[in-house]
Amino acid sequence: MRASRPAVHPVEAPPAVAAQAQEQAQAQGHGEGEGVAHPRGVRMKDPPGAPGTPAGLGLRLAQAFFAAAALAVMASTNDFPSVSAFSYLVAAAILQCLWSLSLAFVDIYALLVKRSLRNAQAVCIFTIGDGITGTLTLGAACASAGITVLIGNDLNICAENHCASFETATAMAFISWFALAPSCILNFWSMASR
Amino acid sequence: MRASRPAVHPVEAPPAVAAQAQEQAQAQGHGEGEGVAHPRGVRMKDPPGAPGTPAGLGLRLAQAFFAAAALAVMASTNDFPSVSAFSYLVAAAILQCLWSLSLAFVDIYALLVKRSLRNAQAVCIFTIGDGITGTLTLGAACASAGITVLIGNDLNICAENHCASFETATAMAFISWFALAPSCILNFWSMASR
Repeated sequence: MRASRPAVHPVEAPPAVAAQAQEQAQAQGHGEGEGVAHPRGVRMKDPPGAPGTPAGLGLRLAQAFFAAAALAVMASTNDFPSVSAFSYLVAAAILQCLWSLSLAFVDIYALLVKRSLRNAQAVCIFTIGDGITGTLTLGAACASAGITVLIGNDLNICAENHCASFETATAMAFISWFALAPSCILNFWSMASR
Repeated sequence: MRASRPAVHPVEAPPAVAAQAQEQAQAQGHGEGEGVAHPRGVRMKDPPGAPGTPAGLGLRLAQAFFAAAALAVMASTNDFPSVSAFSYLVAAAILQCLWSLSLAFVDIYALLVKRSLRNAQAVCIFTIGDGITGTLTLGAACASAGITVLIGNDLNICAENHCASFETATAMAFISWFALAPSCILNFWSMASR
């Protein structure tokens, strides 16, 4: 008999490329089931400056460097503890330096093992930390700037004070804040847009 | 002949509710074709505190009130122009007051005509303006706080200065900044999440 019957096709093995891409997505995704849900090949790239990218690492190193510079310049004057704002600048610079350095190490680790840091909880922690340290650094820089301008321009007693050191430390703190702002904005953006 | 033929069904008119919802979405949407693309009944509500909501209007009025209070208290002392930081606080408070008042008027208009302010360009302008005025107000408040602490705690010359007025003005500026922060964060969030 030659009656028609359903043809049996062997189940094709999925192409190797797809399996590889899915494995990569799983390895990089971290979020539970996040990598699997994405269609293969449509993985969003991290914007430059985000955590886990070389630009992000550069921003963190710049923040830490300028905070350390502000700290060093301010601590090199012998009379900074007599003014509360300058002591506060030293404290804020230490905090900023520690925070930026620790995030720089996280970035270096992520770059070395080629992992993405687009985890929701990690981005949330980075954003809140950036916001707090940024506010503290900006406040300390502005307070020091107010005192420096008072000493230098309003009272004209620069001769008996280390005006140049105070101004340099304030400027370094401001530059550190300017390097922190893009990190904070990028982190907040990627937290809100997920 | 009774051969089968395609049955002709009359085209049903869309129910009145759908048309009404679409009209509302178009009236509230502002964005070109935004309201039309939404499925009916799935219009997102503005979070409390966003522009165009009563809570947002309250935040704006609080910002303007406390900035005006800082301005009035600082201007009531006769020697504030001798310190640059205090003059800067007055300037920042004026800017903050004008910005918050103008956005309060926009909110009142939006509430009166029941329009939503979820326009992409409007939210972008609000966010940038909030960010700039917030940074300036925080900077001015921190600079004034630095000077006030210097006068009151470090030098102990409160007897010959209006320490109470300076401290009150600084506190008002800080409160104004605290009222500005939620507006700025909400605007940035709704800008990033669209």
